[in-house]
Amino acid sequence: MTLEEIGAWKSFGGWQKVFRHQSNETGTAMEFSVFLPPAAERGPCPLLWYLSGLTCTWENVTAKGGFQRHAAEHGLIVVCPDTSPRGLDLEGEHDTYDFGSGAGFYLDATREPWSTNYRMESYVVAELPALVEASFPADTARQGIFGHSMGGHGALTLALKNPGTYESVSAFAPIASPMRCPWGEKALGGYLGPNRQGDRQTWRAHDTTALIEDGARVPEILVDQGTGDNFLAEQLKPELLEQACTKAAIPLTLRRQEGYDHSYYFIATFMGDHVAWHAERLAR
Amino acid sequence: MTLEEIGAWKSFGGWQKVFRHQSNETGTAMEFSVFLPPAAERGPCPLLWYLSGLTCTWENVTAKGGFQRHAAEHGLIVVCPDTSPRGLDLEGEHDTYDFGSGAGFYLDATREPWSTNYRMESYVVAELPALVEASFPADTARQGIFGHSMGGHGALTLALKNPGTYESVSAFAPIASPMRCPWGEKALGGYLGPNRQGDRQTWRAHDTTALIEDGARVPEILVDQGTGDNFLAEQLKPELLEQACTKAAIPLTLRRQEGYDHSYYFIATFMGDHVAWHAERLAR
Repeated sequence: MTLEEIGAWKSFGGWQKVFRHQSNETGTAMEFSVFLPPAAERGPCPLLWYLSGLTCTWENVTAKGGFQRHAAEHGLIVVCPDTSPRGLDLEGEHDTYDFGSGAGFYLDATREPWSTNYRMESYVVAELPALVEASFPADTARQGIFGHSMGGHGALTLALKNPGTYESVSAFAPIASPMRCPWGEKALGGYLGPNRQGDRQTWRAHDTTALIEDGARVPEILVDQGTGDNFLAEQLKPELLEQACTKAAIPLTLRRQEGYDHSYYFIATFMGDHVAWHAERLAR
Repeated sequence: MTLEEIGAWKSFGGWQKVFRHQSNETGTAMEFSVFLPPAAERGPCPLLWYLSGLTCTWENVTAKGGFQRHAAEHGLIVVCPDTSPRGLDLEGEHDTYDFGSGAGFYLDATREPWSTNYRMESYVVAELPALVEASFPADTARQGIFGHSMGGHGALTLALKNPGTYESVSAFAPIASPMRCPWGEKALGGYLGPNRQGDRQTWRAHDTTALIEDGARVPEILVDQGTGDNFLAEQLKPELLEQACTKAAIPLTLRRQEGYDHSYYFIATFMGDHVAWHAERLAR
């Protein structure tokens, strides 16, 4: 696999870079950003994954999230993948903001026509880490993952499904239970088909609260959630995460932040806390 | 004058807001952003103006500059105006990125068809401060000004031309001498006409180095300039500012930052230093 560098900016003493590569999983060209802190010039650094929300690419959080200051301070490499395959024109792919392009939901689709390309789970969990490990001084024995909204869902579910891979997990305003909100019902139905009853229901492997109920565990979780978030009651439902964690005795630090909304101004405000939280756990 | 609030996001304990109003100076609707730090809830705060560069609106630095963290910490109100009138369709106004819309150069045009609306100097120095003072808890006895590129030129020239108004001035990669670079020659020629010889040349009142040569003074200047900036040699020419300040005995802190370019990644990296620098001087 070949990485093509398509952007590079010096930032907080390190380098913010952007790469394009051909993905086997998605069958398309994919772009991602990587921040290399000053410490990466001296040796391997822990690797922190940031998964973005609906409609975003690597660029939104890279330009507006403000993580570089904190990643430079703590010596973390931060990688921000895209949120879906790009450059395709599947039927209905670009019709709505919450399904198809920009809305991959960090799962491997099983339903036509999505199953060939919409393989964001395998891309984020396996293909891209191998590429990053081969290309940058990343210590893949020390990985953390976080994200926003759909990307918070992605961070939580991927951490729960891959025990031992991610040492730390946190989220900004995550979709706590896609099985129980309109965004999630549309995405899971579209990519996976109806929620078939059986030994296990089809959707449960992609729902944070269901994964926890079914026995998946992470050491602890940090979540920030704005109380002024327009999507709070209908889509995000942090109380469901709270209930699941309480029942499973997973230590959850859920901070309800008064008056904050769903924007990057909210993310930037608490970015420093999250990066420090991961850094502390990845330094162990 | 009526302010219409068109955006409001909680940010670092304060509020990032955006307003639209009808401007007498430009004859158009104008937008600007204002960050209100937590301290503004308790009483008047110093007022820091940020002037943006070519092609930008209030939005670029507000979303990507990362000043909110530092302004919240130091208790400063930060106002970011637009870079030109908007919504007009003057002949040639939208043809090039470096003249007309997005490129007002913080001067009052004297040449037709620009002179009616392109009055960004009066707008930034007089009309908008009066509006801000009337609408927010801003202590206008303590004002600082900074900016980037064309906005660095704006900050420096407006501070030099209005002694006593701005207590502190700094810039990121400013156009040091518009009379002696292609961007400036195009703008000054277009807005002011040929550089007429006389008691004073027409352009000298809008050129930082000429203003200093002609006797204008500020107490001191902070400038950051990336050495990897594509516009350094042809457009920015910090050595001209250095020469003028040396001759005039104006204390200039000019920091050449190795490898940094002209982007917001550069601005964000040194934003904290600049806000702290202004805060220290505005607290006196």
